[in-house]
Amino acid sequence: VGTQVCVVGAGSWGTTVASLVAHNADTTLWARRDDLVDEINSRHTNSAYLPSATLPDTLRASSDLDALIAAADVVAMAVPSQGFRDVAARVANSIGATTPVVSLSKGLERSTLMRMSQVLEELMPGRPVAVLSGPNLAREILAGQPAASVIACADDAVATTLQQLFSRPTFRLYTNPDVVGCEIGGVVKNVIAIASGIAQGFGFGDNTKATLVTRGLAEMTRLGVAMGANPLTFAGLAGMGDIMATCASMQSRNTQVGVRLGKGESIADIVASMNMVAEGVKSSAVVVDLARKLGVEMPIAEQVARVCDGTQSAADALRALMSRSSRSEFD
Amino acid sequence: VGTQVCVVGAGSWGTTVASLVAHNADTTLWARRDDLVDEINSRHTNSAYLPSATLPDTLRASSDLDALIAAADVVAMAVPSQGFRDVAARVANSIGATTPVVSLSKGLERSTLMRMSQVLEELMPGRPVAVLSGPNLAREILAGQPAASVIACADDAVATTLQQLFSRPTFRLYTNPDVVGCEIGGVVKNVIAIASGIAQGFGFGDNTKATLVTRGLAEMTRLGVAMGANPLTFAGLAGMGDIMATCASMQSRNTQVGVRLGKGESIADIVASMNMVAEGVKSSAVVVDLARKLGVEMPIAEQVARVCDGTQSAADALRALMSRSSRSEFD
Repeated sequence: VGTQVCVVGAGSWGTTVASLVAHNADTTLWARRDDLVDEINSRHTNSAYLPSATLPDTLRASSDLDALIAAADVVAMAVPSQGFRDVAARVANSIGATTPVVSLSKGLERSTLMRMSQVLEELMPGRPVAVLSGPNLAREILAGQPAASVIACADDAVATTLQQLFSRPTFRLYTNPDVVGCEIGGVVKNVIAIASGIAQGFGFGDNTKATLVTRGLAEMTRLGVAMGANPLTFAGLAGMGDIMATCASMQSRNTQVGVRLGKGESIADIVASMNMVAEGVKSSAVVVDLARKLGVEMPIAEQVARVCDGTQSAADALRALMSRSSRSEFD
Repeated sequence: VGTQVCVVGAGSWGTTVASLVAHNADTTLWARRDDLVDEINSRHTNSAYLPSATLPDTLRASSDLDALIAAADVVAMAVPSQGFRDVAARVANSIGATTPVVSLSKGLERSTLMRMSQVLEELMPGRPVAVLSGPNLAREILAGQPAASVIACADDAVATTLQQLFSRPTFRLYTNPDVVGCEIGGVVKNVIAIASGIAQGFGFGDNTKATLVTRGLAEMTRLGVAMGANPLTFAGLAGMGDIMATCASMQSRNTQVGVRLGKGESIADIVASMNMVAEGVKSSAVVVDLARKLGVEMPIAEQVARVCDGTQSAADALRALMSRSSRSEFD
């Protein structure tokens, strides 16, 4: 019997990662809803999240979290940030004393400003914690298009084990010891994607988008460095790679929100019309809180937060960003 | 009488920069051809390079290089890399002893592997040399879309003077002392744009493109660091910003070449069909030479160079890149 992996959360990204790993190891996927469990086990599809994709036959789903976790040698958490702690607390009841846990989730906990790996460390002390991040457009990766990501873990041996377990010929994994940087990249990129979408919705082209996203990367890097991250992480797959894929793709809900804001719709109307809230709408305020606490200047995130809480129009936000005074590139 | 600026070279980027500066200072534009000089002075257009754009009335063009340079307080060179030395030698005949020279050109000299700023330093010793780089899609910037770039100069006071002279409300300039990094970014990005175009032409989506471009940035950074550049420069406007705009835009000739290669056309047919050779087709071999000389691994540039010299198909190049062994993100 080989390694057994459990992926917790059957959204588009959790299902995609479970489908990749199922080629390398016995893999189970936890879904909350029994109808989705049945669909995955009998039809090998997840039509709500990944229309037209076929999942591996060997991938087995279940709603019995305790049983899946008790049998798992490796656990991967793919739960949205705001529900993350509740599910992680249930995982903690059954997980082995030294079982590695990988976070696939990109967000911060609203009330505590904690990163997902910090939540895992608090609830499951003693287990090695890792983060998988990078340009993660689920549909393209599940379709077998070439991609690469980062597996971040403070323990090098665990990182190498997870790298082998989660890699596929079309999904290359690079190790990086910088857990904080990889997580901050995943959080801030959703905020920057809203700003980039606003510029696009306004009718600005690739040059303005590239400028804005690059300045967004600079403020993402400032925040990360203030938290102890390696600045080079942000030039890598979990920084630039993720932000570039997100901002280029209308598959991203955050980009969609930005484009609609740029075209003049109100944030209230946009949020009311979407099934799932785009992560960046909520996390912009959390990022700004964190930046203030650490004394880091994040002008783009601040403007996005104001647009998302309805106190500033998208047009005024763009204007404010362009009127800042000239300075050196890396202060 | 205020500062007088001369921009040497009336292609799309030279004309765009001259048009921006003309709002801040007396500005002249050198064009080789008299019919283009007449068009710029009488109709205020440059229809071959910037169709449908109107240039400022105050911008004056001339083909008399000696007279323009003799009158200039600042000179900006916007000449393609392979003709750069010849024109710079003519500029050197008339330029003032302490007149700053700004390179707007992105390339390496084929025979010497020299950067454009090195050519300027050789031919015009004693003059402060600077580089302007960043996401520079000329048409969008000339249309007044918000943009930002980097002005790189070892002399901080000169950098600040040039920053004020070349900035516009819609064209923010950041100073950066790293001349080498800004130039290497501008050279390697054209090579990476060909690789990104190949992936796009193959039918791969935004995720694959973002992955490939990020790995391209990593090898660009390795080369730059081996030459003494600051790695952070590549996460900035002259690295990531420029590469992101270039790879997103079909305005880029390098992206166009890549897309056609990815669709199965031969490099010979593509080159034969284009009026101007895309810079990356030539510079891929130069970049690989430089990387070998410095012992730097640049797998993407190597594959692009092989495709561009006709010894490898685009399909085989993509396959070779995807089959490399897993490793850590920043070796």
